[in-house]
Amino acid sequence: MSSPFVLDQQLESDTHHVTDLSLSRLLLMNDSQYPWLILVPRVADIHEVFELTQAQQHELWSEVARVSKLLKADFQPEKINIGALGNIVRQLHIHIVARNTDDAAWPGPVWGAAPAVAYEQTRAQSLVDSIRSQLAAI
Amino acid sequence: MSSPFVLDQQLESDTHHVTDLSLSRLLLMNDSQYPWLILVPRVADIHEVFELTQAQQHELWSEVARVSKLLKADFQPEKINIGALGNIVRQLHIHIVARNTDDAAWPGPVWGAAPAVAYEQTRAQSLVDSIRSQLAAI
Repeated sequence: MSSPFVLDQQLESDTHHVTDLSLSRLLLMNDSQYPWLILVPRVADIHEVFELTQAQQHELWSEVARVSKLLKADFQPEKINIGALGNIVRQLHIHIVARNTDDAAWPGPVWGAAPAVAYEQTRAQSLVDSIRSQLAAI
Repeated sequence: MSSPFVLDQQLESDTHHVTDLSLSRLLLMNDSQYPWLILVPRVADIHEVFELTQAQQHELWSEVARVSKLLKADFQPEKINIGALGNIVRQLHIHIVARNTDDAAWPGPVWGAAPAVAYEQTRAQSLVDSIRSQLAAI
C-alpha cells in the first residue's frame, strides 16, 4: 500500500501555503529577497521528476509554466529561474524564482546564497492572497 | 522572418557536442567534477521555457527525463539536479547534473561553485561516444 502524501517538514517551515493545484501544492518561500514559489507534487515517496508518470510530468511542467508566467506578469523580472535540486530536502519540489539584476544573489543561483529574510506577516499574506486569486481567475 | 537557431558562443566553448535530439542539442559540460549535460532547444530567440509552444515544452521535458534516466543509470548518483537559470547565458538551456555527496559543490548547486576542471580529451570523447550510443539504442 502506498503511503499518503505529507509535506516535508523543512518545506513546511520555510514557506507559506498558497494553494493546491491539480497535481502540486504551491508554496511561497518565506524569503522577501526574491519572489520565490515552490511546487511540490502531492505524490508520496518521489525524489526525481522521472519517477512521476508521464501524465504527472506533463501536469507538473504545465503548472511550472503557469506559475512562471504569473511571476513574469506580476514582477517583470529579468529572468525566471527554475530548479529541481533536492540535495538537502529529498521530497520532489520545483523552485520557480523571479530574478533581478539587483537581487541578493545575481547572477548566481539563489540556493545556498544569502540567508533568507522573512516577510512581514501582512506582506506574506497579501502576496499569498494575490497569487491565489490570480490562479483562480485563469 | 524568424532567425535560425545558432548555439550561444559561451555554451559552445564550455561544452562538447553530443548529439541532436528531436528538439534539443545535447551538450556535455566540459567539467570533469560532475557528469553534467545540457539541453538547448534548437529554437531561436527563446529565453524562458514558457515561450516555447506547449508541444515543444512537452518534448523538452521528455528529453530532460530521458537524459536524467541515462545519468542515473550510468553514474548511480545520489541526486539528479535540473536547472533552467540563464542569468548569464540567455539562450534557453537546461542543465541536468548527476550529483554525489563527495562532489565539489555538494550539497550546494554547481552553478557558480568550483571553477570547471576540463576533461582529458580522450575521456571527454569516450563519454560523448557512450552517451550517444546509449541514446541511439533507446
